[in-house]
Amino acid sequence: MTSAPAPRRGRPPGDRNTRARVLAAARRMFTERGYNAASLRDIAREAGVDAGMVRHYFVDKAGLFRAAMDMPVDPSALIASLLSGGVEGLGERLLRKLVTEWDDAGNASAMIILVRSAMTHDESNRMLREFISRQVLGRIAAAVDAPDRELRASLIGSQLVGLVVARYIVRVEPLASADPETVVAAVAPTVQRYLTGSIR
Amino acid sequence: MTSAPAPRRGRPPGDRNTRARVLAAARRMFTERGYNAASLRDIAREAGVDAGMVRHYFVDKAGLFRAAMDMPVDPSALIASLLSGGVEGLGERLLRKLVTEWDDAGNASAMIILVRSAMTHDESNRMLREFISRQVLGRIAAAVDAPDRELRASLIGSQLVGLVVARYIVRVEPLASADPETVVAAVAPTVQRYLTGSIR
Repeated sequence: MTSAPAPRRGRPPGDRNTRARVLAAARRMFTERGYNAASLRDIAREAGVDAGMVRHYFVDKAGLFRAAMDMPVDPSALIASLLSGGVEGLGERLLRKLVTEWDDAGNASAMIILVRSAMTHDESNRMLREFISRQVLGRIAAAVDAPDRELRASLIGSQLVGLVVARYIVRVEPLASADPETVVAAVAPTVQRYLTGSIR
Repeated sequence: MTSAPAPRRGRPPGDRNTRARVLAAARRMFTERGYNAASLRDIAREAGVDAGMVRHYFVDKAGLFRAAMDMPVDPSALIASLLSGGVEGLGERLLRKLVTEWDDAGNASAMIILVRSAMTHDESNRMLREFISRQVLGRIAAAVDAPDRELRASLIGSQLVGLVVARYIVRVEPLASADPETVVAAVAPTVQRYLTGSIR
């Protein structure tokens, strides 16, 4: 198998680079245009392959979207590693890790696509809710030793999503331009109180 | 002037009920479909008037959107009334007022339209940023006696927008179904710390 594209010759080659190139193009287009406006055809063109190739790998736009969402840092591994230090100081560790990831535009894009798309597209709204609930908040809740652990986890979710929207999407100043450690110092105590402090 | 619609007869009648009906239809359609997908023509049909009538009042879709945004509680009057009690306890008063307003779906829709639209539409992204910065955060910042008052105000914005997204748009449980006073008790201390507490 060569690395040159094989246009319309039976089954497309199972080239890992092609798949990666399509996913990168998908993340770029979904980020720039949102889920609805980014077409499978445009994404194929952006990746330099034909649409049939994209369908071969991902079936349809929803499948492509899901695959693009799974690409960045594995959230379960990330949360597990943060939780391994225990809940004391977890607010600060969580914030520092997330702000560092999101400040890097490449890693930011998946979360940003999800949040943007969820606002206007019911399918990705459900996806975001499930992704956040299962992959992030469920794991955090499991680490908290309190009967209201799920409420606490969803409160953390509200501050983290709000930080994504305010700093990275709507870009409210001066929060958008504040240096990472300023954001960590300001927001980590909020997350820590939702984790282990008084919320009643 | 009668209350019956006057189809295509020179200048449309300046009927206040017609204008209000168009604005109500616009809020409904923008909420359900987002800014991009709701057409001026569909909104006119929903309101039972022709598109020329809508253009007569609001010029174009952006003008209609702006007018629809201005309709609910006047944010400046709301914030001014909350601030008149001083910054002590402002976190709790602000949260209680907002959660009460947002829980009432009618009033919620304008904020929800703005947040949803801002994610996928650059024009309304700019609108949301300007609306939040000027109408809400600017007034809060002016009431805070600290050199970092603008950072504090934008941190408050991050928690409030996050609460809107998590409770009303993405509906992360159990936050989405928590009773209002539970939300106020949990989130007010966050807002109060951003207002008057230590953030460094």
